[in-house]
Amino acid sequence: MDKHKRTYAIVGTGAVGGFFGAKLNRAGFDVHFLLHNDYDHVRIHGLTIDSKAGDFVLPHVKAYRSVRDMPACDVAIVALKTTSNSVLPDILPPILKHDGVTLVLQNGLGNEDEVSKIVGGNKVMAGLCYICSNKVGPGHIRHWDLGNITLAEYTVDGSAAGTTPRMKALAEDFQYAEIGIKLANDLLLARWKKLVWNVPYNGLSVVLNTMTDRLMKNPSSRRLVTDIMREVVTGAASCGHPIAESFVREMLDYTDSMVPYKTSMKIDFDEKRRMEVEYIFGNPLRAIRKAGGSSPLIEMLYHELKFLDDESQSLR
Amino acid sequence: MDKHKRTYAIVGTGAVGGFFGAKLNRAGFDVHFLLHNDYDHVRIHGLTIDSKAGDFVLPHVKAYRSVRDMPACDVAIVALKTTSNSVLPDILPPILKHDGVTLVLQNGLGNEDEVSKIVGGNKVMAGLCYICSNKVGPGHIRHWDLGNITLAEYTVDGSAAGTTPRMKALAEDFQYAEIGIKLANDLLLARWKKLVWNVPYNGLSVVLNTMTDRLMKNPSSRRLVTDIMREVVTGAASCGHPIAESFVREMLDYTDSMVPYKTSMKIDFDEKRRMEVEYIFGNPLRAIRKAGGSSPLIEMLYHELKFLDDESQSLR
Repeated sequence: MDKHKRTYAIVGTGAVGGFFGAKLNRAGFDVHFLLHNDYDHVRIHGLTIDSKAGDFVLPHVKAYRSVRDMPACDVAIVALKTTSNSVLPDILPPILKHDGVTLVLQNGLGNEDEVSKIVGGNKVMAGLCYICSNKVGPGHIRHWDLGNITLAEYTVDGSAAGTTPRMKALAEDFQYAEIGIKLANDLLLARWKKLVWNVPYNGLSVVLNTMTDRLMKNPSSRRLVTDIMREVVTGAASCGHPIAESFVREMLDYTDSMVPYKTSMKIDFDEKRRMEVEYIFGNPLRAIRKAGGSSPLIEMLYHELKFLDDESQSLR
Repeated sequence: MDKHKRTYAIVGTGAVGGFFGAKLNRAGFDVHFLLHNDYDHVRIHGLTIDSKAGDFVLPHVKAYRSVRDMPACDVAIVALKTTSNSVLPDILPPILKHDGVTLVLQNGLGNEDEVSKIVGGNKVMAGLCYICSNKVGPGHIRHWDLGNITLAEYTVDGSAAGTTPRMKALAEDFQYAEIGIKLANDLLLARWKKLVWNVPYNGLSVVLNTMTDRLMKNPSSRRLVTDIMREVVTGAASCGHPIAESFVREMLDYTDSMVPYKTSMKIDFDEKRRMEVEYIFGNPLRAIRKAGGSSPLIEMLYHELKFLDDESQSLR
């Protein structure tokens, strides 16, 4: 990968992929956007970003309806919802150079394993996104808060890979594009830490039809959030990824300090899209069970969400 | 209590108290209805019952706005929602004869203990109602299905009282009024068995915004219903009330055979009334905890319902 020529493919030009892709594009990188429903609009009007860090418009972007028309790139950014992962075997191989890397910017657990089966275990990195953004229209993304990525290298056996030259190279590109970057030594530990937040807030915001601030204010839901966080921490430990007990307190404090926030899963549910139940709940649960642990609260939340997801889809 | 002169007071003239009180009244018993919001309407128009067993109207009933105007009766039927139990210390003593009995027709656990503190432990009986009915307007009750009562004697120490002459006397009155009656030897066992149904269906129908048939049809919610029933059975056993494991299967089969049903808690929630969370969930949980047991699923459901109840009341 030559820094000065590094090319990016964006798979999933929505709230996450559209935002980071647009920032890379604005910074001068060669970015290729794969689009589906929004193709015609973006081809004509480009991308519009309303951001707390400054609004901008890219009137002309390289938009594609099919991977057959795209060049092979140095970096393929996967920012689809995990509910669409079944399309990846057709999409990723043609758009990735032989020495390229796939950067998985998705939520949950197990995504990188699936991608590695498609592109090879040595061509996968992960980015854990900390961002509040929505797609508000075709090619139109609103960025509310945060906007950082934690990069981590994938290994087939799940061991910590530390920081690599490839990570640092990507970090430089992103930082040049004004995207905050952290480097994590241990992908699975980072994923589990993110689940400590995602499992209670994504799940309960849907089941209880509410936002983060209400969950924190009411003593019953706050207790439930805390108990579920503890179960994720215990589950992570049983899978070999110990997280300090104090991290629960940190996440509670962090959420207390946030503006009232509607989680991505709640947004999906309200907009009648399939929720990412299997990657955020199902895969962690199966990992904990395989390690001999049990997590009754996460399991109950999983079944509640599966019911709501099925009902929401059957009523569409 | 003289059979031929037995008098009844109805506290809570709604879906349950209004229905059974009207049937007793129609059969010729002397029934005194305590009313609050519906007093003016019922005073003028009486009670209207639309029932699958035959519609009927009682154009004139003995209606009261205050217990000060009511006679002391042989039987005081408590059919208030448990969320209004705080009014009972003012209501029960004046309307109960010195050799009278209070018949508690409420859901959940712990109601009889509270009533016994007001009227004395030897003046309490319980009736477990199996009925689908709603109040659809002032003094207007619609009866959809079932309509039986299981009578059981209360004891202060919770031991099984068997069948008593007093129970049989009341059973005769009710049967004369065409109300199906069963006699239970052990009140707490009967209460716990009813909770095996009430805890999963009342709770999940509210949290998942649905009816019994949908809960049974979807494999995720059906699994959850089953797991929660098993937790109630385990909890009951830890409290000294063993229920056969086969009872879970019976309750599932029973619900499979029911018409799609909206639970009473879901009706309360939809109509923005306080839900009976403490009696159906809180009291059983505290009993299980006191006995050294744990029930994570019931506990989670309890916290979810408390949140929804608080939010629903704060938004009124």
